[in-house]
Amino acid sequence: MSNVSLDDKTMARQNGIVQPLLTDLYQITMAYAYWKSGKVNDVAVFDLFFRTNPFQGEFTIFAGLEECLKFLQNFHYSESDIDYLRQTLPSTIESAFFDYLKDLTCKDIILSAIEEGSVAFPRVPLLRVEGPLIIAQLLETTLLTLVNFASLMSTNAARYRMFAGKHISLLEFGLRRAQGPDGGLSASKYSYIGGFDGTSNVLAGKMFNIPVKGTHAHSFVTSFSTLDDIKCVTLQHAETQEQCNLLEKSLDWRNRLSLILDASPEEASDGELAALISYARAFPSGFLALVDTYDVKRSGLLNFCAVALALHECGYTAVGIRIDSGDLAYLSVLARDTFKKIAETFALPWFAKLTIVASNDINEDTILSLHEQGHAIDCFGIGTHLVTCQRQPALGCVYKLVEINGQPRIKLSQDVGKVTIPGHKKAYRLFGADGHALIDLLQRSSEAAPEVGQKVLCRHPFQESKRAYVIPSKVEHLYKIYWKDGQITTAPKPLSEVRERVQASLRTLRQDIKRNLNPTPYKVAVSDDLYNFIHDLWLQNAPIGELS
Amino acid sequence: MSNVSLDDKTMARQNGIVQPLLTDLYQITMAYAYWKSGKVNDVAVFDLFFRTNPFQGEFTIFAGLEECLKFLQNFHYSESDIDYLRQTLPSTIESAFFDYLKDLTCKDIILSAIEEGSVAFPRVPLLRVEGPLIIAQLLETTLLTLVNFASLMSTNAARYRMFAGKHISLLEFGLRRAQGPDGGLSASKYSYIGGFDGTSNVLAGKMFNIPVKGTHAHSFVTSFSTLDDIKCVTLQHAETQEQCNLLEKSLDWRNRLSLILDASPEEASDGELAALISYARAFPSGFLALVDTYDVKRSGLLNFCAVALALHECGYTAVGIRIDSGDLAYLSVLARDTFKKIAETFALPWFAKLTIVASNDINEDTILSLHEQGHAIDCFGIGTHLVTCQRQPALGCVYKLVEINGQPRIKLSQDVGKVTIPGHKKAYRLFGADGHALIDLLQRSSEAAPEVGQKVLCRHPFQESKRAYVIPSKVEHLYKIYWKDGQITTAPKPLSEVRERVQASLRTLRQDIKRNLNPTPYKVAVSDDLYNFIHDLWLQNAPIGELS
Repeated sequence: MSNVSLDDKTMARQNGIVQPLLTDLYQITMAYAYWKSGKVNDVAVFDLFFRTNPFQGEFTIFAGLEECLKFLQNFHYSESDIDYLRQTLPSTIESAFFDYLKDLTCKDIILSAIEEGSVAFPRVPLLRVEGPLIIAQLLETTLLTLVNFASLMSTNAARYRMFAGKHISLLEFGLRRAQGPDGGLSASKYSYIGGFDGTSNVLAGKMFNIPVKGTHAHSFVTSFSTLDDIKCVTLQHAETQEQCNLLEKSLDWRNRLSLILDASPEEASDGELAALISYARAFPSGFLALVDTYDVKRSGLLNFCAVALALHECGYTAVGIRIDSGDLAYLSVLARDTFKKIAETFALPWFAKLTIVASNDINEDTILSLHEQGHAIDCFGIGTHLVTCQRQPALGCVYKLVEINGQPRIKLSQDVGKVTIPGHKKAYRLFGADGHALIDLLQRSSEAAPEVGQKVLCRHPFQESKRAYVIPSKVEHLYKIYWKDGQITTAPKPLSEVRERVQASLRTLRQDIKRNLNPTPYKVAVSDDLYNFIHDLWLQNAPIGELS
Repeated sequence: MSNVSLDDKTMARQNGIVQPLLTDLYQITMAYAYWKSGKVNDVAVFDLFFRTNPFQGEFTIFAGLEECLKFLQNFHYSESDIDYLRQTLPSTIESAFFDYLKDLTCKDIILSAIEEGSVAFPRVPLLRVEGPLIIAQLLETTLLTLVNFASLMSTNAARYRMFAGKHISLLEFGLRRAQGPDGGLSASKYSYIGGFDGTSNVLAGKMFNIPVKGTHAHSFVTSFSTLDDIKCVTLQHAETQEQCNLLEKSLDWRNRLSLILDASPEEASDGELAALISYARAFPSGFLALVDTYDVKRSGLLNFCAVALALHECGYTAVGIRIDSGDLAYLSVLARDTFKKIAETFALPWFAKLTIVASNDINEDTILSLHEQGHAIDCFGIGTHLVTCQRQPALGCVYKLVEINGQPRIKLSQDVGKVTIPGHKKAYRLFGADGHALIDLLQRSSEAAPEVGQKVLCRHPFQESKRAYVIPSKVEHLYKIYWKDGQITTAPKPLSEVRERVQASLRTLRQDIKRNLNPTPYKVAVSDDLYNFIHDLWLQNAPIGELS
């Protein structure tokens, strides 16, 4: 059926799937047309940028750079790739083109980029790719694939982090709802970068050294139906090493608690108690139990508290509960009140502070609404809405030719928003005296950099009358060269540092730019020189219409 | 930074990334708790099913089975996996558990499934997994990951196919907007299964033997600015082998056409003409050109027609155009009218039938609205909305324990929709005399199968009064065993057959179930026996409340 063997498929995934055939066919047909037109020595500049921030927000986190660099490093068409292309492209393709492809590498490419983990804005290129036209063109789709989802996911995670507040733990639980295996791995990686504290995805934990978290599912609870399902009831005391009967103690506590908690042991599920006792025996120091399998109020909470107190008699401190359904505000407050009552009644202050995890279909709006209602949740486990980026499932980065052989290129469009900013450019972030970022400024690369304390004219790229003078207190040059002469020139930062960079970079944004409702747009401007350059080129290229 | 080397990462991806660590941690903590509770020999039955059809539709295409089988086949914890788990799980975990994991395989698992590519409905399990509790539990997340996105994507593609109609080509162009590399590969594979005709993704073409398609981008056009940018203007005649001057002929045709088409050669872009001539030289038999870089009406169409007619003089037939912006209904009709006019004027009937591809942000609604407005498009290239499943980015399959050691299990919930249907079940599709599917019927496995011509009572699983007698003209047993005794017992069908199965299966559904607006729900019922079984168990498990 398929003209590649399983070995080929294995090979295909060996470099992390990211190999030059992971592209749109038109890149290769264009490469041939360039080659055939004698454009092998043409030199081009491409900008990779987006036009709109995702999630109706006003900022984006740039991510994916490390994977782009790995892709450049490994860029090479294998024999089997070339064979496949020979079969797939028209038979009229000259054979010498395949020899040309066979030897192609990224040695003549220069990749400049914004630092991974930085906040970024529309029209300011995230990546600039310079080098031979053909190879620069061939990189397009793969670079977009690597940057688009990574940046979208990091931005989404950063927004959840912002709205949840600093003191709430956030865990990514989305593997089962992601776009297949690698979609799930990318989601785990980039939600960690965006500010999540861990993931349930074990492979992501192993591959990226991200904390992994998890307890048990409803099926664990329903797999027990009576107290007889507990095969072993004893637990060694943490200090005395004595054998404690966890079942007896739990039953005893359940009876005592029922008087205090207005819940009856007869209504509580024995299967659930059996499950929680078994789980506690397996993880005496990490007892965090799901309490909503039957009924949080009448069964789950009572059973959990009974086992937690029994565990305490064996020298262990329980961790907390997870609630996966129902009214999370009400149930979390109920649980917290219950914990506090027990803490007070039995003089166990730690009981009041047990962790409450919530995990049912959480999204940005749920978090904001829970904050409004009042809740007692310490940790959110977030799946579907996080990993699918529900509010906007794709970031629209594009990759546009802006210069060829030293000549600027502009892509016009009836839609002004789609007109590209031509030429080789530099980008600066100008900061105010209070440390906040004021504006991103694009200039022609030939212009002198803006200077601290010096007035600089910032213009809207397309609206003539929108101009402002800015006197920066700090000027950040946004680009560094990451790849040149066939090697990585600036090592990408490790995950943990990129993660810190996200929070540091977000702190430079004014609060009104970050807020959920009607955020203020951050300004992106061009220099006066670049403004005139754009508009001269525009007039040169736009045909004069005729009204009829 | 990370405690695995790059070699480990490579290893991790070697089996298509799909290895047992691609799971949620809680599966492994549960496995330990089961193991520690002496449940190693417990035998369980899990159902994998969804509760709601995606996209506000009333059907779902089941896909992902082949990948599930590969996962079972390769299920094995490597040394390095075990090492990672040892480091990650609490130090109190008994070492013997890791020895147990090390030897774990799927040899005792039985996997039954609906045929891949079939239409499927809420609550009717897509997969049934039977076998040792621990291993069956450990499969949960990965099976969900493999089935959820595959089924969602196939369903989405099938809907696009349905709404576009049989005679329009559909191409998947979404790689750059998918959830990273593998998200993109899965999107290509499953949109082909759902009814697309090809993809732009070259690697998907190579791996899955899917037709790949593509032409060129705007950057190709903007890389040329004047006619001098054409380095070579000649093309060998297809039959006479004579050298033709493609530039001269194109310019000549552009002048002649301008009189007929109400467009001026002065307004048309010379850079665009240079690009199209160069592209035509490279692909004389496959000339399909993007015509909206500058202005479809005043530049692109004129230039394309000029080059197409010049090519014709060299013995080649052009393929068509692609429009990537603007009013697609208007522009496609304009292009078609232009083609017809030329066909008539120069007595070239094939010119009227040139292909028109449209590709700007297309979704289901765009297609339906274009159909309403009237258009002349032959092919849609669809990216973002297809691969991200914009209208609903995740399918909510769940994996629920329904039986343990021969005893049924039910998961109750305050939300009736979330109550599970307990026990080991069989599923039948009952067909009417006209060949249409009438209803899916779940029965207890101990019951006799419904028979053709025999009245069978079908009941709503939760609403007592909703019952109907059905006399089927055909009965389809929905499950086959695909995996047993450590091997694949029914070979999964090749991609092309699964693709055909989708269309065949959809044809068995009445039109009102498939329509876009307010489709009629397809009925899923339980037998009288199963109904009573569910409700007896429900009463046994639900605590009696107290109003206060």
